[in-house]
Amino acid sequence: MPGSGSPSKGLDDVVIDDSSISLVEGDRGWLVYRGFDIAEVVRAARFEEVVYLLSFGELPGAPSLRRLEEALASRRALSPELERVEASLPVTLPPLDALRTLVSAMGSDAPGYPPTFEDGLSLVAGCPTLLARFVRRSRGLAPVPPRSELRHVENFLWMLNGEVPDPRRARALERYFLLLADHGMNASTLALRVAISTQADLVSAAVAALATLKGPAHGGAPFRVSDMLDSVASPQNARPWIADALARGQRLYGFGHRAYRVEDPRAVLLREIAQDVADPPRFALALAVEGAALAALRERKPHVPLYTNVEFYAAVVLEAVGLPRELFTPAFALARTAGWTAHALEQASSNRLIRPDVRYVGPERGRRWPEPVP
Amino acid sequence: MPGSGSPSKGLDDVVIDDSSISLVEGDRGWLVYRGFDIAEVVRAARFEEVVYLLSFGELPGAPSLRRLEEALASRRALSPELERVEASLPVTLPPLDALRTLVSAMGSDAPGYPPTFEDGLSLVAGCPTLLARFVRRSRGLAPVPPRSELRHVENFLWMLNGEVPDPRRARALERYFLLLADHGMNASTLALRVAISTQADLVSAAVAALATLKGPAHGGAPFRVSDMLDSVASPQNARPWIADALARGQRLYGFGHRAYRVEDPRAVLLREIAQDVADPPRFALALAVEGAALAALRERKPHVPLYTNVEFYAAVVLEAVGLPRELFTPAFALARTAGWTAHALEQASSNRLIRPDVRYVGPERGRRWPEPVP
Repeated sequence: MPGSGSPSKGLDDVVIDDSSISLVEGDRGWLVYRGFDIAEVVRAARFEEVVYLLSFGELPGAPSLRRLEEALASRRALSPELERVEASLPVTLPPLDALRTLVSAMGSDAPGYPPTFEDGLSLVAGCPTLLARFVRRSRGLAPVPPRSELRHVENFLWMLNGEVPDPRRARALERYFLLLADHGMNASTLALRVAISTQADLVSAAVAALATLKGPAHGGAPFRVSDMLDSVASPQNARPWIADALARGQRLYGFGHRAYRVEDPRAVLLREIAQDVADPPRFALALAVEGAALAALRERKPHVPLYTNVEFYAAVVLEAVGLPRELFTPAFALARTAGWTAHALEQASSNRLIRPDVRYVGPERGRRWPEPVP
Repeated sequence: MPGSGSPSKGLDDVVIDDSSISLVEGDRGWLVYRGFDIAEVVRAARFEEVVYLLSFGELPGAPSLRRLEEALASRRALSPELERVEASLPVTLPPLDALRTLVSAMGSDAPGYPPTFEDGLSLVAGCPTLLARFVRRSRGLAPVPPRSELRHVENFLWMLNGEVPDPRRARALERYFLLLADHGMNASTLALRVAISTQADLVSAAVAALATLKGPAHGGAPFRVSDMLDSVASPQNARPWIADALARGQRLYGFGHRAYRVEDPRAVLLREIAQDVADPPRFALALAVEGAALAALRERKPHVPLYTNVEFYAAVVLEAVGLPRELFTPAFALARTAGWTAHALEQASSNRLIRPDVRYVGPERGRRWPEPVP
């Protein structure tokens, strides 16, 4: 019977599936990848290892890791067909839309279901090249070909800037990638799993995920944190600026997350990374804005658990690494290709078409259509 | 608490929201658009009227319908930027992937949330042009510009074939569009609503929906019905062919649908349209294959309600209208842009981020990462 149950708008209380990939424990502030606490991952892991871990549940041994790094490196270059599509995109297209369009153009008639880990490697390895190439062209710069001896994140910065990055910055961006590689169920991962549930290929499913990341309520807001910091301009201005913004009904970006009732562990770790890599005055400004915003928001809603979310210090870290603001959400997408791959494989391993119901509350059946317009 | 409830894999029993757009009553074989039974819609409606009806809940009066038709006609032509992207796509890209890529390239930085009906008109009007242009180029043919005095479906056939279609065929395709314009909640509509729930724009949400339509379990199988009919070749061969196919464990396309326990009303109506428009021998072949398949499937699973689904006669109708097989799923997408528009507006009108949970069943927290690889 469709339409009988009471709607679960937002699906907040709905457990859609079992998953072994990551645990989000919002009451305790845990994020765990396959049994590894996120702090442990950020301390020690390479991004390439986490690509493997999320999909297979185990760390790669040294030979597997070497093979994986070679496989990723060999998939960095674009086909001439894809280069032609990239060259045709208007440079006014937002970079996330460009990345989505180019991933979509990777589609093919080849049987793409069930997805394979190799499909995932093509996605993980191809996205940085697509993005870097588009961004450089939009700045009037020639493309920088990938270098196979560089690690994944280093190579991305190389292709973007045409210089091998300072190791401290490269490691800061790699830590960001590690932190954002997966996060249990969420809107883009849901869209990906819905697409896989129809037996779509991984390219299609990744396109659905990238499309879903466009919305500011999921992936689309971190650049606004940087805009806010610019607008506040000095630590002394934080309190009056926040008070004024709230009085004008303006939304503050970088605070609150539906899943967490304590501080988001990613926010804690990103704050540390920001302190390590950001210019000290910028970090001091961010601290002042965070403090003023949390104080003001908690005063307004004392009973709501409210904390800094992943976006706030992500913005500070990504700025410090030298990414322009329009690449903040695309960088999130690059990191998340690791988790999307794992979720696609998991969904396909025990698949069922995801097809909820709606309760029809429209006009009763039986309306008569007027005679056709001649 | 995440991970507590029991998973609702597939979300079969989950009512995700209230909706006034369409009612799917699988126990009784009803499909109702805003109170109008689908048979009533197919008898009397224009596609343009249904675009309006699904979004607004009422039929347009004559002046509104005229304005709507003008608005759609004025949105048929592509921008030079989009024409350039189209010209860059490899002709080996499957047409559905090409359509998805080109819709994705319609993205922009303009504030796109909440979506508007005008955004929907751009989607509904633009998709046929994008698809026709790509398909003609892949055949080595020059593009045929849209004609504003033609109705929506006629104009699509005009742009595809370069001739004004025979009215009987155009009406058959319009009826197909009417039948496929919406269908309550389903995988592509869910993906669209998930994207809108993140406050993404309609272009992004439509890309998520198009990506989800790629899977054969949702939008991707009707051409296989035509392949099957070709392979059977004659009515007398239907029974032995089906018996042999089932013995070899081959899946039969065009039968069964999760939502229906009686015959899908769209299958009934498409059978009538097929009888009206298909070559009589092809229709006779389809009838024989349908009969043999249902008899054999029901003998194997006597207790499962099993009927012909929407795909079976859709294939026969689309063949008869002159569409090549690789356009069957894209044609479904063109029709569904009407419903996607309505669902995007409805989701945004009372929005909440769609974010279900998963039950973590992976390794326990506390694994230690080995010392970093040097």
